[in-house]
Amino acid sequence: MEERYDAAVIGTGPAGLSAAITLKIRNKKVILFGSKNLSGKVEKAHEINNYLGLPAISGEELGKRFAEHLQQMEIEITEDQITSIYAMGDYHTLISKTNHSYEASTVILATGVHFGKPYPGEEEFLGKGVSYCATCDAPLYKNKRVAIIGSSPREEAEAEFMAEIASRVYYIPLYKEPVSLGDSVRVVEDRPVSIEGDQKVEKLILKNQKLTVDGVFILRESVSPAQLAPGLAVEQNHVVVNRSMETNLKGFFACGDITGMPYQYIKSAGEGNVAALSAVAYLDQKRRELK
Amino acid sequence: MEERYDAAVIGTGPAGLSAAITLKIRNKKVILFGSKNLSGKVEKAHEINNYLGLPAISGEELGKRFAEHLQQMEIEITEDQITSIYAMGDYHTLISKTNHSYEASTVILATGVHFGKPYPGEEEFLGKGVSYCATCDAPLYKNKRVAIIGSSPREEAEAEFMAEIASRVYYIPLYKEPVSLGDSVRVVEDRPVSIEGDQKVEKLILKNQKLTVDGVFILRESVSPAQLAPGLAVEQNHVVVNRSMETNLKGFFACGDITGMPYQYIKSAGEGNVAALSAVAYLDQKRRELK
Repeated sequence: MEERYDAAVIGTGPAGLSAAITLKIRNKKVILFGSKNLSGKVEKAHEINNYLGLPAISGEELGKRFAEHLQQMEIEITEDQITSIYAMGDYHTLISKTNHSYEASTVILATGVHFGKPYPGEEEFLGKGVSYCATCDAPLYKNKRVAIIGSSPREEAEAEFMAEIASRVYYIPLYKEPVSLGDSVRVVEDRPVSIEGDQKVEKLILKNQKLTVDGVFILRESVSPAQLAPGLAVEQNHVVVNRSMETNLKGFFACGDITGMPYQYIKSAGEGNVAALSAVAYLDQKRRELK
Repeated sequence: MEERYDAAVIGTGPAGLSAAITLKIRNKKVILFGSKNLSGKVEKAHEINNYLGLPAISGEELGKRFAEHLQQMEIEITEDQITSIYAMGDYHTLISKTNHSYEASTVILATGVHFGKPYPGEEEFLGKGVSYCATCDAPLYKNKRVAIIGSSPREEAEAEFMAEIASRVYYIPLYKEPVSLGDSVRVVEDRPVSIEGDQKVEKLILKNQKLTVDGVFILRESVSPAQLAPGLAVEQNHVVVNRSMETNLKGFFACGDITGMPYQYIKSAGEGNVAALSAVAYLDQKRRELK
């Protein structure tokens, strides 16, 4: 049987870190998913003046303080991107991009705000040719034609892998860095406009051309919350929570920018703490029910 | 005409300080009421581990960091206890214990949790012999008999003042420090049990004796939120707020422990930031309406 965590915290911005710290203090078994660089957004901030107790601090310095806090509390970061979360009744199963699966009694979602709208046709054809995970769905495209939209150079490996299975792979990079891919992948420097088809995906429309394909893989840095967890109540790209940071799903909490404005570090850190304590209360309640 | 502040922040714990800082950054004219010692509760905390970015910090050290932050931002503290807040339509009038009055377009209440239940009879006889402000109501007790329940040595001055007006003043100290009062005040070392009367206060019942009085002054460190602001929605001693820290009263926000559990510094600091930004949005909205 797989190891079952008390809580899976997803996101290493102020909300996720604050949640992880509080859970650790409360002796819960936590797995924290995110980046060892913590939050790109914090890192890039010029000067932060409203984080009470740390006046006039640079984003870089604040990030360092956060990292030191994690280290002191011996909290590790698991660098595996979670792409799906399924409610299993008493626990949740989390599936990652590398196709690993994790089990946790509670989930705390702190992945920040999901910028960018879906392409026209993206939501309509989700599961009918549109996918967010090449590793998961590649086998469905054996000897077929696929387009991969990559938001960062990290996605190039997925295109290489896909080329071993599909008959034709187009790669549309959304970034400025030079693309380094073998001959098996056709790099198309163009801008995606929409996805078209009848019952399933037939074409990816780009600004200057149309590609006839059976599948479109959209590989973004983050997955929108509704796509991540089926059934999660979302309003205008924000997860709906109450003052205890509970979502509409049992044992599933959210905190930080993903729950709405204002987008502020100290607000996120505060919410992470509240979400963690709500998760602790939920776990305690569960334990009492089992007795 | 009195000076009108954009915002009056009441309370110098993490919630109030965070609110004041954010308002100052947004160029609002702020008055911050509280103690130059900031928060007794923070000061007394042994070690705090879950204030993200400041691991394993003592309450004393955290208080110092907060004070430094205020100083860097040139925020002053007004040491005048607010005892009543009245909604005046477009603004609020705040009355202090020293009988000063202040005007502010918005109010941010961050006075922490009000511990201690009211005495039996206290709420029933409020305004009918029960009062929270000796300075305000003393003239009503000329040549009458009053009892003063004092929660700290700071209240002794009020007893002295009352003795100049009333015919008899009993003083019941709830603290351990020695009482230093002149002969005009009778110090009663006993414990209050209840307040009794028919239409108005007639007796203060103590554990070991009964005092026949016309008035009972209960001088606590803090006034409960419902007593402070008439009409403010309160549930079980907590001010009811939404996720934007708005109360049921227009232009009136609350944050920190006073809004409910969990009682955590980082949660309070986060909420102070949100309350301040909601106040800023409210002020902007008002200004647009006036154009």
